[in-house]
Amino acid sequence: MKQYADMSAAELSAVKKELEDAFSKYAENGKKLNMTRGVPSDEQLALCNEMLTCLSAEDYHSINGADCRNYGGLDGIPEMKKIFAELLDLTPDEVIVGGNSSLSLMFDNVAVNMSHGVREGQPWNSQGQVKFLCPSPGYDRHFTICKYFHIGMIPVAMGPDGPDMDMVEKLVSSDPMIKGIWCVPKFSNPTGIVYSDETVRRFANLKPAADDFRIYWDNAYAFHDLGSTKAVIPNIIRLCEKSGNPNMPHVFASFSKVSFAGASVTCMASSKSNCEYIRKRLTAQTIGPDKLNQLRHARFFKDAAGVMAHMEKHAVILRPRFRLVYETLRRELDGLGIARWTEPEGGYFISFDSLDGCAKRIVALCAQAGVALTPAGATYPDGSDPHDANIRIAPTCPPLSELRDALEIFCAAVKLASAQKLLS
Amino acid sequence: MKQYADMSAAELSAVKKELEDAFSKYAENGKKLNMTRGVPSDEQLALCNEMLTCLSAEDYHSINGADCRNYGGLDGIPEMKKIFAELLDLTPDEVIVGGNSSLSLMFDNVAVNMSHGVREGQPWNSQGQVKFLCPSPGYDRHFTICKYFHIGMIPVAMGPDGPDMDMVEKLVSSDPMIKGIWCVPKFSNPTGIVYSDETVRRFANLKPAADDFRIYWDNAYAFHDLGSTKAVIPNIIRLCEKSGNPNMPHVFASFSKVSFAGASVTCMASSKSNCEYIRKRLTAQTIGPDKLNQLRHARFFKDAAGVMAHMEKHAVILRPRFRLVYETLRRELDGLGIARWTEPEGGYFISFDSLDGCAKRIVALCAQAGVALTPAGATYPDGSDPHDANIRIAPTCPPLSELRDALEIFCAAVKLASAQKLLS
Repeated sequence: MKQYADMSAAELSAVKKELEDAFSKYAENGKKLNMTRGVPSDEQLALCNEMLTCLSAEDYHSINGADCRNYGGLDGIPEMKKIFAELLDLTPDEVIVGGNSSLSLMFDNVAVNMSHGVREGQPWNSQGQVKFLCPSPGYDRHFTICKYFHIGMIPVAMGPDGPDMDMVEKLVSSDPMIKGIWCVPKFSNPTGIVYSDETVRRFANLKPAADDFRIYWDNAYAFHDLGSTKAVIPNIIRLCEKSGNPNMPHVFASFSKVSFAGASVTCMASSKSNCEYIRKRLTAQTIGPDKLNQLRHARFFKDAAGVMAHMEKHAVILRPRFRLVYETLRRELDGLGIARWTEPEGGYFISFDSLDGCAKRIVALCAQAGVALTPAGATYPDGSDPHDANIRIAPTCPPLSELRDALEIFCAAVKLASAQKLLS
Repeated sequence: MKQYADMSAAELSAVKKELEDAFSKYAENGKKLNMTRGVPSDEQLALCNEMLTCLSAEDYHSINGADCRNYGGLDGIPEMKKIFAELLDLTPDEVIVGGNSSLSLMFDNVAVNMSHGVREGQPWNSQGQVKFLCPSPGYDRHFTICKYFHIGMIPVAMGPDGPDMDMVEKLVSSDPMIKGIWCVPKFSNPTGIVYSDETVRRFANLKPAADDFRIYWDNAYAFHDLGSTKAVIPNIIRLCEKSGNPNMPHVFASFSKVSFAGASVTCMASSKSNCEYIRKRLTAQTIGPDKLNQLRHARFFKDAAGVMAHMEKHAVILRPRFRLVYETLRRELDGLGIARWTEPEGGYFISFDSLDGCAKRIVALCAQAGVALTPAGATYPDGSDPHDANIRIAPTCPPLSELRDALEIFCAAVKLASAQKLLS
């Protein structure tokens, strides 16, 4: 196997010609394949179909006696709080259950800190230009929240153990206008890496210049292991208690990729004291989340062990998809010196890095050949990848046969874009 | 029947003595009766029990082909938008479907206008002290939103045809810091009055000093008629189009008191152009509302006619409760010159006015006798009724027998508080 960089111009041109011919045929085939989003597959959704009918005219009461069909309750029925608490190794009074979208919980949290301040603090929006640290590549929807609130975004490099903690510590301790950081600590979106114990420990021991600095700990893939050995990350809330900064972390979790992405339950977790503040706000904000859907979840999953057993069924479905990506990328691209990628043991994404300056071209080539990918750059603040190299691969939704076709085209696009780049 | 005001001190003292004895007995009985909230009764909730099981492993697709179990869709599935549009006499692209709480839609709307401004306008919070007109008595949760955002509240008197429109027109046209008004146009909370055609027409023809003034038209009881003749109010959105102010009204509606208060669907409606702005915000704010619950509603109700037929079943249950209140109040209090009340033909509340300075005392007496009422003053901004006269009666939830007991105690409390007041 010869690296592209070691090829002569003639060799590269031959490669290029061959691939261009292949692409003409792909375009003619007119296939439409979609790898844009981290969307559960039909098979995964079917795992929960029983939830569609698990309540009845005889079963709609919560364990606390509340009629879940009626008004009442702001922060979740006891059984759902208990399940989240068990899963996150917290107590139920550290949990606030929300509706279908954990993104809303994060948005609201940022919104209220901007307009009303953190707890009794000064509103962020009255203090000057607020900034957030944005480990990148990261989740585009986090960055969209910052953009919406005109919050400055400072990219921080992501490594195999998490964000560059030297940089995080330096910035957070020196700049009081840095008010937050976005983290996806387990199977990070999109790199799939798991924060190391040391990374989490350093997060808990941050000494922010701003006393209203908050860690947005979006544990979106907390239960989403593919392998038989489960990845475990330290409990950020307990560690922050120990470090004397108990109110610093805001943890988010979601059943969007556990039950139904279109009818889920989500939660926010934080110190008891923070939760009390949030409940006060909820009184003004809402008559409360859908309780029947919480009860459906509690009936179907029963407890945290039920959730974990269910996640193993997801893993059985997803494992072959991730394996297919790894096998195809290795077979097609290993040794060519034109690509690097992660091979996570959980989550929903694989992060792919091409040669610098090739990502947009690869995505465009795929689009011409009928394969839709997440826009290049989407994983960086403002949609702008300084290296134009990162692409997020989302293998969960397409059936295996479609995924195979899509990956063939993707690898060809990587090769063609690389050859074009090296010849230019 | 002698008016209390015409009684001699001796006569009044005798009345007072008799009632004080009665209250000692009520307290001993130790009954617990609750008339605090506009909560549907068990019988009403049971009307929708079929909705608990109406989806299945074979039925989870929207008419547009979308799998409602999965991600996708920000503003409602087509069938639910259509039902709301039919009910409100609008088009589906003037409707945005939300989650379980219309209060959240209102809160979010105020929040974004404060932080980001109305459309391309200047953020409200950067313009100085924002004020809202608050027709009073009104809905306490509207006032709580104002309070949360430090919005000044200007009470406006409520009459039989709606708010005092002379005052509304004068204030709105002269003060550019008045940015909004809260309206419950049909079966207003708590007076139960229906805005007259003339009132609605005058709303649509307001000439606000602020070009970012908005009408918050909370049509919470739009389908909640008790009588066989349905109350009809003019279409505020169409009238505002005609008056050249198409973006002024924001309409809200909810199925909280149609299906399940604990698992409802809600909507916001406005001009197409306003809805486009809102959809842009929703992209940052949420992955979307629960689609399966929308589909449940669409399957169960089928269309607007199905909703209206269903509301007649609610009316059959509620009519005797409201009648019982009217009969009891007339029998016990008519002619005594100590009370006035409304007798609405729909909605969830009856507004009761005692002699000035008696409402708190009446609520306290009821509490001692085991009857919980909405706190006196709750229907006014800051919970402060300048006359200490208004009490909101919520007769929907207690079974008839309990309601009868509670009303007996309530009327006794009104008499006792009045006698005490007149003797003091």
